[in-house]
Amino acid sequence: MNGVTNLQLDDIIERALAEDAPWGDITSETFLPESARARASLAAREPGVFSGGEVFARVFALVDPATTVELLAEDGQAFAARAILAEIAGSARSVLLAERVALNLTQRMTGIATLTARYVTAVEGTRARIVDTRKTMPGLRILDRHAVRSGGGHNHRFSLSDAVLAKDNHLAVLEASGLDLGTAIRSARARLGHNVHLEVEVDRIEQIEPVVAAGVDTIMLDNFTPDQLREGVAIVAGRALVEASGGVELDTVAAIASTGVDIISIGALTHSVRALDLGLDVTVEP
Amino acid sequence: MNGVTNLQLDDIIERALAEDAPWGDITSETFLPESARARASLAAREPGVFSGGEVFARVFALVDPATTVELLAEDGQAFAARAILAEIAGSARSVLLAERVALNLTQRMTGIATLTARYVTAVEGTRARIVDTRKTMPGLRILDRHAVRSGGGHNHRFSLSDAVLAKDNHLAVLEASGLDLGTAIRSARARLGHNVHLEVEVDRIEQIEPVVAAGVDTIMLDNFTPDQLREGVAIVAGRALVEASGGVELDTVAAIASTGVDIISIGALTHSVRALDLGLDVTVEP
Amino acid sequence: MNGVTNLQLDDIIERALAEDAPWGDITSETFLPESARARASLAAREPGVFSGGEVFARVFALVDPATTVELLAEDGQAFAARAILAEIAGSARSVLLAERVALNLTQRMTGIATLTARYVTAVEGTRARIVDTRKTMPGLRILDRHAVRSGGGHNHRFSLSDAVLAKDNHLAVLEASGLDLGTAIRSARARLGHNVHLEVEVDRIEQIEPVVAAGVDTIMLDNFTPDQLREGVAIVAGRALVEASGGVELDTVAAIASTGVDIISIGALTHSVRALDLGLDVTVEP
Amino acid sequence: MNGVTNLQLDDIIERALAEDAPWGDITSETFLPESARARASLAAREPGVFSGGEVFARVFALVDPATTVELLAEDGQAFAARAILAEIAGSARSVLLAERVALNLTQRMTGIATLTARYVTAVEGTRARIVDTRKTMPGLRILDRHAVRSGGGHNHRFSLSDAVLAKDNHLAVLEASGLDLGTAIRSARARLGHNVHLEVEVDRIEQIEPVVAAGVDTIMLDNFTPDQLREGVAIVAGRALVEASGGVELDTVAAIASTGVDIISIGALTHSVRALDLGLDVTVEP
Amino acid sequence: MNGVTNLQLDDIIERALAEDAPWGDITSETFLPESARARASLAAREPGVFSGGEVFARVFALVDPATTVELLAEDGQAFAARAILAEIAGSARSVLLAERVALNLTQRMTGIATLTARYVTAVEGTRARIVDTRKTMPGLRILDRHAVRSGGGHNHRFSLSDAVLAKDNHLAVLEASGLDLGTAIRSARARLGHNVHLEVEVDRIEQIEPVVAAGVDTIMLDNFTPDQLREGVAIVAGRALVEASGGVELDTVAAIASTGVDIISIGALTHSVRALDLGLDVTVEP
Amino acid sequence: MNGVTNLQLDDIIERALAEDAPWGDITSETFLPESARARASLAAREPGVFSGGEVFARVFALVDPATTVELLAEDGQAFAARAILAEIAGSARSVLLAERVALNLTQRMTGIATLTARYVTAVEGTRARIVDTRKTMPGLRILDRHAVRSGGGHNHRFSLSDAVLAKDNHLAVLEASGLDLGTAIRSARARLGHNVHLEVEVDRIEQIEPVVAAGVDTIMLDNFTPDQLREGVAIVAGRALVEASGGVELDTVAAIASTGVDIISIGALTHSVRALDLGLDVTVEP
Repeated sequence: MNGVTNLQLDDIIERALAEDAPWGDITSETFLPESARARASLAAREPGVFSGGEVFARVFALVDPATTVELLAEDGQAFAARAILAEIAGSARSVLLAERVALNLTQRMTGIATLTARYVTAVEGTRARIVDTRKTMPGLRILDRHAVRSGGGHNHRFSLSDAVLAKDNHLAVLEASGLDLGTAIRSARARLGHNVHLEVEVDRIEQIEPVVAAGVDTIMLDNFTPDQLREGVAIVAGRALVEASGGVELDTVAAIASTGVDIISIGALTHSVRALDLGLDVTVEP
Repeated sequence: MNGVTNLQLDDIIERALAEDAPWGDITSETFLPESARARASLAAREPGVFSGGEVFARVFALVDPATTVELLAEDGQAFAARAILAEIAGSARSVLLAERVALNLTQRMTGIATLTARYVTAVEGTRARIVDTRKTMPGLRILDRHAVRSGGGHNHRFSLSDAVLAKDNHLAVLEASGLDLGTAIRSARARLGHNVHLEVEVDRIEQIEPVVAAGVDTIMLDNFTPDQLREGVAIVAGRALVEASGGVELDTVAAIASTGVDIISIGALTHSVRALDLGLDVTVEP
Repeated sequence: MNGVTNLQLDDIIERALAEDAPWGDITSETFLPESARARASLAAREPGVFSGGEVFARVFALVDPATTVELLAEDGQAFAARAILAEIAGSARSVLLAERVALNLTQRMTGIATLTARYVTAVEGTRARIVDTRKTMPGLRILDRHAVRSGGGHNHRFSLSDAVLAKDNHLAVLEASGLDLGTAIRSARARLGHNVHLEVEVDRIEQIEPVVAAGVDTIMLDNFTPDQLREGVAIVAGRALVEASGGVELDTVAAIASTGVDIISIGALTHSVRALDLGLDVTVEP
Repeated sequence: MNGVTNLQLDDIIERALAEDAPWGDITSETFLPESARARASLAAREPGVFSGGEVFARVFALVDPATTVELLAEDGQAFAARAILAEIAGSARSVLLAERVALNLTQRMTGIATLTARYVTAVEGTRARIVDTRKTMPGLRILDRHAVRSGGGHNHRFSLSDAVLAKDNHLAVLEASGLDLGTAIRSARARLGHNVHLEVEVDRIEQIEPVVAAGVDTIMLDNFTPDQLREGVAIVAGRALVEASGGVELDTVAAIASTGVDIISIGALTHSVRALDLGLDVTVEP
Repeated sequence: MNGVTNLQLDDIIERALAEDAPWGDITSETFLPESARARASLAAREPGVFSGGEVFARVFALVDPATTVELLAEDGQAFAARAILAEIAGSARSVLLAERVALNLTQRMTGIATLTARYVTAVEGTRARIVDTRKTMPGLRILDRHAVRSGGGHNHRFSLSDAVLAKDNHLAVLEASGLDLGTAIRSARARLGHNVHLEVEVDRIEQIEPVVAAGVDTIMLDNFTPDQLREGVAIVAGRALVEASGGVELDTVAAIASTGVDIISIGALTHSVRALDLGLDVTVEP
Repeated sequence: MNGVTNLQLDDIIERALAEDAPWGDITSETFLPESARARASLAAREPGVFSGGEVFARVFALVDPATTVELLAEDGQAFAARAILAEIAGSARSVLLAERVALNLTQRMTGIATLTARYVTAVEGTRARIVDTRKTMPGLRILDRHAVRSGGGHNHRFSLSDAVLAKDNHLAVLEASGLDLGTAIRSARARLGHNVHLEVEVDRIEQIEPVVAAGVDTIMLDNFTPDQLREGVAIVAGRALVEASGGVELDTVAAIASTGVDIISIGALTHSVRALDLGLDVTVEP
């Protein structure tokens, strides 16, 4: 599963299971015979783009290695309402213990992938990429980012540690400290590793030239109108990548993309996720 | 902070910080003087009901104990757009390192509280309580539940371990195993601790009488129409609490509540959260 | 294993093994050939009621997955002195490394089950249940509770989080704060989740009526004599469950049970456990 | 606190608190005003020897750093029934949240110290030391051992890693492998670190001479009668320390000590602990 | 401390302390009065470049918050033999418990900084940067990298996750899979985040042109002679950064740097560290 | 693997993998087909003594259980340059993800074993043992110590907890506290467990007699010349083991050993390790 090692996945799932069953599942333990078997289907109640197949399967395996899960869809695959995305078989107690954690994770991931795909479709034919932000769910960032990729999006930096993004607040501190932005950019470049991407956010047209002249890899134009974006792209003139951010919506993204920007970042991909409606249909064996 | 001890809160925040800054904040380290100071306000961009104040403050304290945070709103308090909810002061590097984690957590919690409050308002004047479900974000359940309470809602069981809720799948397994539901309920009661609540879900009117007769604390009527709910409440006749669940929306909840049910559980309170738009306005000191 | 998921069990055992062999077993490493094989029997040196079979087996599996353990008794099963409860086979080094941790855990659990069973037997024919308390061994509560169930007992609440039990100290704080108990109970009920059990402890006869009238699920009569208990049961008159607690001994429990109480809670089941005498008889293969 | 660093102590307590209040203390949160203050005394209900003072105090500090705990007795100090061992003051909610974990740990430790002291007193005037074994509570060994020292006892090896103790099972494996014990002891000595103590257990008089001749630091005489022990001590003749083990009771330990053995190890000090009866008497402030 | 948050630092130190004192410091506990105070100086036994000051101080603080540490040198500062780098004061037991862990970490970091500084000095006047590799000590990478920066070096990518470096083995797999390198580079670029640096390693002159033409950010010339490097730099002609790697030594690095490469990566900075000779000179107070 | 349990080994490796691939291996994920297979050989680039075979194999197994590793050398075995020490086969992505962590650990361990073996060879024919110190890499002590044993060395105490070593600083505190060393030694012996080794360091000839007379197990002669060591050995006269320490080098160790000391401890075995040059030669399958 790209972007997630199996050890990291297990860590996330084990915490989720400990949270959801800190001292067992008292319903199944009192209502279900230990020997009861169950089959279950992961069924889509609405159309979407799948993400989280390996996560889903791993929850059942960690609860009970004897459970089998067959994935019927790949991450990134579009599906119709009523599609069956996976088949599960195992002890009834184990299947029902794993159900909620598996669904909570997969519904979120599929929700992210589905929304991302809509944005990606909306900008088709332009040079713009749809990318995520750090507005992810604390503790689940590797899954959120994977889901964005499942939907055809790209990832922005993972964290504060792996790429520079100097925002308005940084610029304000610089200014208050009496420091020149161009100098600061050049000084930062000299200190950063050669493989660290340097991006600076501006919110006014006149900031663009000095920032680009100082040598950034990407310039983020925050809350620019399409016209302003078009003007900004012209000023940058290929000297850096151009990222549009701020208030991007499904009905405005095409206009933004048409301005020639390279990247459109959208916090809503991950900060306000509508869980896709997936359910587990359980059938039992006599 | 009700429902969350300080050790548990720290564990959640420390994981989030490790995720968001695994080897420091390279932007601040290269752009900002170590001595730079910042002040920041947590500002509401839209109206809502606050939740997560202590969480917000604790993120800054864990990043840097020298940072001060003054909360200007209490959890559960309604606020207008442009309200200032907290004031922060400290090292600019520390404030900017903590910002995103603090916002990610607080925006989600405030989003949950705000939505919950709308449902609670919608059922005012009825006996119905708005309650959450286990459809929470893996790893953040204690925060999600606190936020529901901030919005005036109540909590359902925390996990599979602390209360019984036998759902359609359990009943199907029982049936396939040739077991009688009434017998199963009585047998479960005999084995469960005396302080364990026993709830059973049914999806047809005719299941109500045998379930209630067998002795449950709550009966969940799943996906019943308001008319069916009213009929169900009459059958139960006070012998158990009645919970309505399934497809509850803001524009249907009042009708559901008017049927006389005691509890209305709503997965969407926590599974599809719109983060409330809160931002950090930073001002720097020269 | 009811009440314990496999992930939680592994966590307990892995900590115990790390404690008991932080850098290996230097005796076996220097005295035993790596190829030596051993067989061992878990033998009872005295009669009792077994508990902890899966725990016992899992210790050996975690030390060395190639070790085999066959359980010859089920949790809850009574056994005679000299009974063989399990057979183990594997590398001699692995068997001897696992031995002490496996015995420490199983002897405690079997000790708890055995004592619990004596109390349960003593109250047979009455309506009273024998239940545990929160006086368990820190870190091992899920095992202590399982052992109580193995002995035929029931569990009280797991923790401070899953049920209310207002004790003398809470009542004293209420009083000092000038608050009325009945009001407090009704207010608590309004705020608690619908599936949270509400229990209040009293230590005087005259406290019973107002508490029951305010609407509790269980009333605990602390340190009442049998006569007082009988009077208390009469006052409650079925409006709540009645729990007797305080200084219950094997030779007084029958009298207490005969008063008609529903629950008898006994801290000594888990706070002062005599480890049952179980030993590992090792035989080696030439 | 000897034998326990503050980081290790915090780890034990934090796990215990997470177990006992996984999502807060719902009783205090619903019954007690957040502003209520409490004072409490740790009172002895029976006489004993104190152990665990720092553990006790640290539980309250970790729950709420604003709580103050004044210890009135030192570890190892004997106290009478009704003695006050500590005074606590703080938020009523915090005090009641910490109470059970603090008592569970301290009552066990004080129980161990008290029993150990009785054994130590019983052998006064002889050369024999009372020592513990590895039959401790999994996860709490550092506390159990500290408590033994509080009672005047000494510690045996901490774990399988820090000293050699070849027992009957090891000897059986050696024999089955066709290896000579004397050779094995000399070979082990050559491989072990120079500061590793080498002890061998025997259960027959005739095993003593070859073992001592091979060069051990301590020889354990397991389940020897006093007469056999006296004979064994004579054979060893100062060439090694002599440890008596097996079935030592309070009424036999003096006779065993009088045989001239150096060490008497007693599993019951820690495997079957009677928690000493300590209680928290809470007084509240109006 | 750049590149290391305080939570991450504590995690490293707490593990180290748990390893070095799993159940206390039995020497100090038996030899030193609890009240004994000590002063200590961190003294250089040889000249070097300091790194790890905050790490050093934090070890003492975590062992005992009452210990004070005054740092007399900053990270990156050169010092002479016999220089005093820090002064410590506190409980003698606490100082001696912290000593070894503090020294083990600081001596390594200072050793890395000192060696790095020698390389950096050797290439002064050229455009070449000295950078580290992933050949760091498992678990201590953030400290190793900080030490490289203290010595005036730069960091390469942190991990496999934050930048691409396709090496000979990747190219071999591509070839075996019948894939074209240029196509693979372009395809990777399309899938990677816009802020991910893309570097490819080649080991033959003729590989350079196609790789650069496909669009990489950096090309690594592995095990090239200075003449080959010079030729390579000419071919690349500014279209990408050029990194020299492989067998760089202190006496060859100047020649390599003079070829015009941008980056020289040296595994030996961190994989074969000579700990700088620092010692703790303790003086005690009567 | 002597001195390391499988649970402890996994913990070390899992941390190392999390550090080296916190969100996957983006190079392999973008450059290599998921189906690509690879074979690899662990090849020695220089001669040495192997250590870490099980560690090496376990890294690959934890990354991907489907990877196979065949070890061709045992820990402690000498090998020539160009020797093949292990063969690996599996998914190309998995092999390349595991490579660096596996090499980082094994190269260090083999470096330690190789250097240790040189010292051991240098003292052959004397009674002296080569032993390590606590100057190990924080977090990796169990591996460092295993590697010393692979090289034919012995281990000193593991930690501050398992043996006493009173050094110059302890003696200075004693003196400042007005305490007599002989009295302190006897008092310590009385308090320590019977299996705790008691060693005292001296740095002047005249300290030897009182220390030995007070009854120590080992006396460490720190920074003595060979002549002084010889004199010291004569004074001790077999009443304790004699350990030489301080500034031992490969060209001085034979002279030191020839003085009759029992133990020579060398911090440089682990504090300044040159990683042995091992590489992974990967071949791919078409």
